[in-house]
Amino acid sequence: MHMPSLQFRNDTVQAILWSEDSLKLLDQRKLPHEETYIKCTNATSVADAIRSMVVRGAPAIGIVAAYGVVLSAKQHFTGEGDNWKASVKEDLEILAQSRPTAVNLFWALKQMRQCLERYENSSDVVRKLEAEAKRIHDSDIAANQAMAQYGAKVIEDDPNHGDSILTHCNTGSLATGGYGTALGVIRACYEMGIINRVYADETRPWLQGARLTAWELLKDDIPCRLIADGAAAHTMRVGDIGWVVVGADRIAANGDVANKIGTYGLAVAAQFHDVKFMVVAPSTTIDMDVPAGEDIVIEERDESELLQVQGKVIAPVGARASNPVFDVTPYDLIDVLVTEKGVVDKPDADKMKKLMCRNNLH
Amino acid sequence: MHMPSLQFRNDTVQAILWSEDSLKLLDQRKLPHEETYIKCTNATSVADAIRSMVVRGAPAIGIVAAYGVVLSAKQHFTGEGDNWKASVKEDLEILAQSRPTAVNLFWALKQMRQCLERYENSSDVVRKLEAEAKRIHDSDIAANQAMAQYGAKVIEDDPNHGDSILTHCNTGSLATGGYGTALGVIRACYEMGIINRVYADETRPWLQGARLTAWELLKDDIPCRLIADGAAAHTMRVGDIGWVVVGADRIAANGDVANKIGTYGLAVAAQFHDVKFMVVAPSTTIDMDVPAGEDIVIEERDESELLQVQGKVIAPVGARASNPVFDVTPYDLIDVLVTEKGVVDKPDADKMKKLMCRNNLH
Repeated sequence: MHMPSLQFRNDTVQAILWSEDSLKLLDQRKLPHEETYIKCTNATSVADAIRSMVVRGAPAIGIVAAYGVVLSAKQHFTGEGDNWKASVKEDLEILAQSRPTAVNLFWALKQMRQCLERYENSSDVVRKLEAEAKRIHDSDIAANQAMAQYGAKVIEDDPNHGDSILTHCNTGSLATGGYGTALGVIRACYEMGIINRVYADETRPWLQGARLTAWELLKDDIPCRLIADGAAAHTMRVGDIGWVVVGADRIAANGDVANKIGTYGLAVAAQFHDVKFMVVAPSTTIDMDVPAGEDIVIEERDESELLQVQGKVIAPVGARASNPVFDVTPYDLIDVLVTEKGVVDKPDADKMKKLMCRNNLH
Repeated sequence: MHMPSLQFRNDTVQAILWSEDSLKLLDQRKLPHEETYIKCTNATSVADAIRSMVVRGAPAIGIVAAYGVVLSAKQHFTGEGDNWKASVKEDLEILAQSRPTAVNLFWALKQMRQCLERYENSSDVVRKLEAEAKRIHDSDIAANQAMAQYGAKVIEDDPNHGDSILTHCNTGSLATGGYGTALGVIRACYEMGIINRVYADETRPWLQGARLTAWELLKDDIPCRLIADGAAAHTMRVGDIGWVVVGADRIAANGDVANKIGTYGLAVAAQFHDVKFMVVAPSTTIDMDVPAGEDIVIEERDESELLQVQGKVIAPVGARASNPVFDVTPYDLIDVLVTEKGVVDKPDADKMKKLMCRNNLH
């Protein structure tokens, strides 16, 4: 892997804390009002934490699941017979079922399973699994720092980068092993003096922008203005915004990007305003088995998420809602895709294939 | 005025109830959870109701203020001397200061002042003022019904009108004397069998879509799906939507439209998707003294409206927000402007001038 020469510092958020016998997770459901940690000592409690949204964000989920496998091995390993192995493999299944659509989850569990199979007859297996989980965690942070450097360089080189970057949802330390994807690029841009301000969409219905991104940026003293999602186009029109920078939940082989609902509208508005559009995601987010965005099924979640705000009912009884969680931004609206393997200008199927042949991280 | 031949029926919401000695206003702050009316018996309480958002929507504010003048005359009229006239004129001032930016408010108060001056020496003055206020109210409903007919005809004549209309904010009976502007067109389209469904943006930060539009459409059995504001572009992409239909707060002489924040982003997304964009507003909304949208100052309201949802804090303490209340949609993104004076295709300065020369209503 290419190690970035510049190690960015401004990231004080620690959402995933591993110690020898437990995993502590910052309970993101309670943010920004309470900073409490939940302690997991076995794989089932880790799976519960993923399912119940204590932890969210595709890269973060993968890392946490990997630590879940270590906890399982610590609990069940006896050094004798095969029973303990069967128990760990059961836990691998439980973890895999915690969030069925997160691509990075399956990738991380595959790494852990391979490690288990390689060392299952060694007395060292628990230590090996722990090392593997830490490697996954560390390499995610390293990937984020590499992406931050790549992305910030692209924006720095744009003479029209403007004073502010606009972002959507939460793609920061809370969503990853640390530092963040899109928010990592934004942190780096601020640290390098390229921009002075972040506009953050509040991101209904879950309000990740208001609850999580504003919280992270406040922690790290990066000036941020929350805006209503509907104010993004107006803000591009009147504000000094050169780039929209977002993350991705899944990227198809042609470069189409599925991400949090609202991303696509931002890409359309960015094109209209001649604002550049950047997607930042580790290569584990790219699914070369999915040819195009139209092949990605858009998850519809419960209507209640829209009819309420944090448990407070806002709509009349009997009202109906449509609640797609993701949308697809077609590749031709994307100016730059940044991964830890490098930068792709104006992504398309050919360029995506070339990117994925590069033998870097993962 | 051109009276529409088709009198649309599906409107059961009564937000402004006038009786001989009082004005009852549906308290829109409590919707959709409570349907309670506030009783006003003098001009001061009417001004308070406008200021505190019991009633909102530019046309509705004008009507309510007119009834406020009637209440003032009923309270103060003695039939002798000039003191009572001075009291009514004082109340006219109080009403004018209740909401400083609503154009329709000043128009309605001007009508009432002219009526007062014409009949102030007649023993019939109170009855004349009451008749004038009722005329303003009735003509607003008539204008809405005319616009509904005009707008629905335009959509009916479009072979690609689709199954659904997308709208923003609340432009219905609650925002007008009755029936609504954009929502009036939508009601008519549903009644005439042109469309089968409405998509309503929830419209952060005030949630007029979730609280008011969903409530009105539910009352009248018009199928409606609430969506997050950020889901509008995706919904245009995947849904069978031929038209976006919205209201206006102020229209400049060149056809630029100031309306609730989020409108502009919808217009940009509509153009990208080849979805038509219609603005529906009475001619009292058109301000020929304002040459273009850039001359309209965009009001910024308190940050707390974005940091909270109905009193519930959603963002971290110390977070900052940017809260523009309106945005400006340039005329070249508007396919059709519907007023009670008629329909303007692809509005521009010349066509706006011609429209305003037509001697119809107002």
